[in-house]
Amino acid sequence: MGTSRRCSILFLTLALLFPVVRVNRLLKRKPLDYQMLCVCASNIISCSKVGLTNVTLDLPQHIVVLDLSFNSITELYAAWTPKHLNRLQTMLLNNNGLTFLSSEAFVHVTKLRYLDLSYNGLILLDEFIFEPLEHLEVLLLFKNRISQIDRYAFSTMGALQKLYMSHNQISRFPLEVLKERSKEDTFKLLDVSSNKIKVLPVQGLQTMRAWIKNGVYFHNNPLTCSCELYNLVASWHLRELNSAIDFAGNHTCGVSGKQHEKILNLNCSEVKILIKEAYLEQTLVLDCDTKHKYMVKRWVLPGNIPVSSANDSAMVDGGNYLHVGPLKVENSGVYTCYATNDSLSDTLHFTVVVHNSSMRGGLEDLKTAYTTLGACVISVVLILVYLYITPRCCACCSGGKDDPRDSFHSSTASLPLEHVERGAEAGGFAFGDAAMQRIKDQLEQNGRLNPIGEKDEEWLRVTTKR
Amino acid sequence: MGTSRRCSILFLTLALLFPVVRVNRLLKRKPLDYQMLCVCASNIISCSKVGLTNVTLDLPQHIVVLDLSFNSITELYAAWTPKHLNRLQTMLLNNNGLTFLSSEAFVHVTKLRYLDLSYNGLILLDEFIFEPLEHLEVLLLFKNRISQIDRYAFSTMGALQKLYMSHNQISRFPLEVLKERSKEDTFKLLDVSSNKIKVLPVQGLQTMRAWIKNGVYFHNNPLTCSCELYNLVASWHLRELNSAIDFAGNHTCGVSGKQHEKILNLNCSEVKILIKEAYLEQTLVLDCDTKHKYMVKRWVLPGNIPVSSANDSAMVDGGNYLHVGPLKVENSGVYTCYATNDSLSDTLHFTVVVHNSSMRGGLEDLKTAYTTLGACVISVVLILVYLYITPRCCACCSGGKDDPRDSFHSSTASLPLEHVERGAEAGGFAFGDAAMQRIKDQLEQNGRLNPIGEKDEEWLRVTTKR
Repeated sequence: MGTSRRCSILFLTLALLFPVVRVNRLLKRKPLDYQMLCVCASNIISCSKVGLTNVTLDLPQHIVVLDLSFNSITELYAAWTPKHLNRLQTMLLNNNGLTFLSSEAFVHVTKLRYLDLSYNGLILLDEFIFEPLEHLEVLLLFKNRISQIDRYAFSTMGALQKLYMSHNQISRFPLEVLKERSKEDTFKLLDVSSNKIKVLPVQGLQTMRAWIKNGVYFHNNPLTCSCELYNLVASWHLRELNSAIDFAGNHTCGVSGKQHEKILNLNCSEVKILIKEAYLEQTLVLDCDTKHKYMVKRWVLPGNIPVSSANDSAMVDGGNYLHVGPLKVENSGVYTCYATNDSLSDTLHFTVVVHNSSMRGGLEDLKTAYTTLGACVISVVLILVYLYITPRCCACCSGGKDDPRDSFHSSTASLPLEHVERGAEAGGFAFGDAAMQRIKDQLEQNGRLNPIGEKDEEWLRVTTKR
Repeated sequence: MGTSRRCSILFLTLALLFPVVRVNRLLKRKPLDYQMLCVCASNIISCSKVGLTNVTLDLPQHIVVLDLSFNSITELYAAWTPKHLNRLQTMLLNNNGLTFLSSEAFVHVTKLRYLDLSYNGLILLDEFIFEPLEHLEVLLLFKNRISQIDRYAFSTMGALQKLYMSHNQISRFPLEVLKERSKEDTFKLLDVSSNKIKVLPVQGLQTMRAWIKNGVYFHNNPLTCSCELYNLVASWHLRELNSAIDFAGNHTCGVSGKQHEKILNLNCSEVKILIKEAYLEQTLVLDCDTKHKYMVKRWVLPGNIPVSSANDSAMVDGGNYLHVGPLKVENSGVYTCYATNDSLSDTLHFTVVVHNSSMRGGLEDLKTAYTTLGACVISVVLILVYLYITPRCCACCSGGKDDPRDSFHSSTASLPLEHVERGAEAGGFAFGDAAMQRIKDQLEQNGRLNPIGEKDEEWLRVTTKR
């Protein structure tokens, strides 16, 4: 009779004769033969709920699934298996009371794709624990007591698709997990719901592609209310992202100890998405940012015209983007991106409004207007200064012998004349001497604004001397 | 505070106040709110080991993984969920003491891809239980008490990749599972190890492709010893199929209650695989029947010549097959198929022996030889008959007046003469009358083998009359 058939029978016998814990203690010093305790179903070895403690298991090379759940393995070191298990893909360690994972715990199982560490007592995830797990796709860490996560804890796990960390004590949103994987094709889910996160990295999250945001779960956290947070949640709702829609009732926030309220009920300005405003002659780029990666995309222009049969004003770039332009007013309307794959579909409607003015023209008009306004204001100020300051000075200076070159009005009043002289010379105006003298006299009179109508010879001398 | 956060706290309180079984009984009549008992980690709902009985669960639409393991659900009807769960992919029902599965148990979860029913008390798998599970890829049924499997129990599960049924009471090898999937691309594993199977469908198994056989586990069964079984196991070993190699020590057999012995130790003739004998002018087809489907294959001819740069005598057909021929003696040698994919490789060496004779020529030679031999034997028999029977007859007939045409030797003895006459006429031989008469005389004498040397006129009359 085969050894693996004997294992369950032997185990039953042993279980009846001794307490299992005692068996483990007795065998703790040398590698434990799995056939004594476990059920062996071809490439699955199930040692679930057999009272294993921190033992060393002598497992066969062909094992693909190892179930060690519901035992009492509280610490895991490299020595739990004496040899490399290169075909092991799934390892279940949930419900074990695990409090310590050595940085070498997984050095012998580097081909793991699924690791369940849920329902344990882990507190710290340091830089090196998961380093060997380059092929890991799913990591279950929910229902632990994790409060500290090293920024590089998941950095080497290039194949990671789903990371479940809800029901822990996490207070910092691990944005690096998303950033590291934003260029990967396979990332699907990050769950940090039911933790102790007060502030989300809203800017960082909003710049992510929709297919990433679709799998970011952060409900049931003691978030601090803000309109920034409202904008994020509201825009995710409008795009019908799973993470927002599936837990619509669990997106709450509060302010320092106050009762939590629904984020969507905050009194913030309305969020609008997929509405694009543009001006004549501009080129608009519409981004078919779908909830799922790898979808076949089809663009339809206003009036339900497929983009292929359209004129030159619309062009698809790499499937994702639609370039529309140079824009005309008649380009306004609803542009639609229909995205589908084997089982899913996603439709994005972009409302484009083209304003009946060019962006460049508008700006130049604005500049001209501001320049004119500025010149007017300066003129008015100068006039006011001239009107209200000069007479008082003249009144007190008229009887005095102070050098008039030091006075305020002498310099200002002389400028126009100088300009006129230079202008006449440069521009070749053919004014006669008499005419020039007339203008000079006029300006001198105006410049002085002689309130008493008398000819002030002293002033005239100063001005003609220059 | 979100409702799903409350669930675990409420449950702990309830668990302390009442026995869980009592809670279930109280709530059995109406759908049970999962949030009261389970941990909700985004799209995973874990209700493991919470004392659930045959309840109805009101689960949310977004659920992808449902863990109901280690409970006391003994019977499963359609009503366990009141609504369709179209995103549910994984359902764990192991360790529940399940004894009955309704044919409608899975009608609301038709998108399931992974179903764990291991460690239960199932006895019968009828035609309709798994009918709705068209998308199921992995089905775990090990450690039950299954003794009866309907031939159509798995027929609708077109996506099935892995079926684990070890540690049951199965006595019939379910070959239909393999036949149904032999044209599918995705089938990977059938485990019927540690059951009660006495006879394998050896013929049916041997005709399967290697990538199917590679995942067929049948060790630890009370198989009846036979050289047919030896051939199967030995050839699987020579091809290094996982199912044979991984459990080399567990392939045993016996005869009616006797102690089991290793199949490979049976005293049967040696098994040779991948050795091909052929004759001149034939065309040989070598089949690169690899252990894994979808491998890139490369053929190399004797002398390490890649098939692409070879002459017209070797041609690859669809990657899998190499046509060699019309064969010459120099085509003998080792042909190799190197197969690889992302992570695996498989190499098949075919030893081809071309016999220095054509199969057609050989057969004809054989026919001629047999014809000659037959003619010789008949001649000898006739001679013996003539020698020993005729004299006795003649002795008793010589005085009688019986019609000699009825006698045995008259007809046989006349044949040579007739042939000679016809041959002379047809072939244009120019024998003179005298010569002909001499031959006739000689033949007549020879034909009669007249032991007494006398001329028997009666005999002569008979022969010349014809």
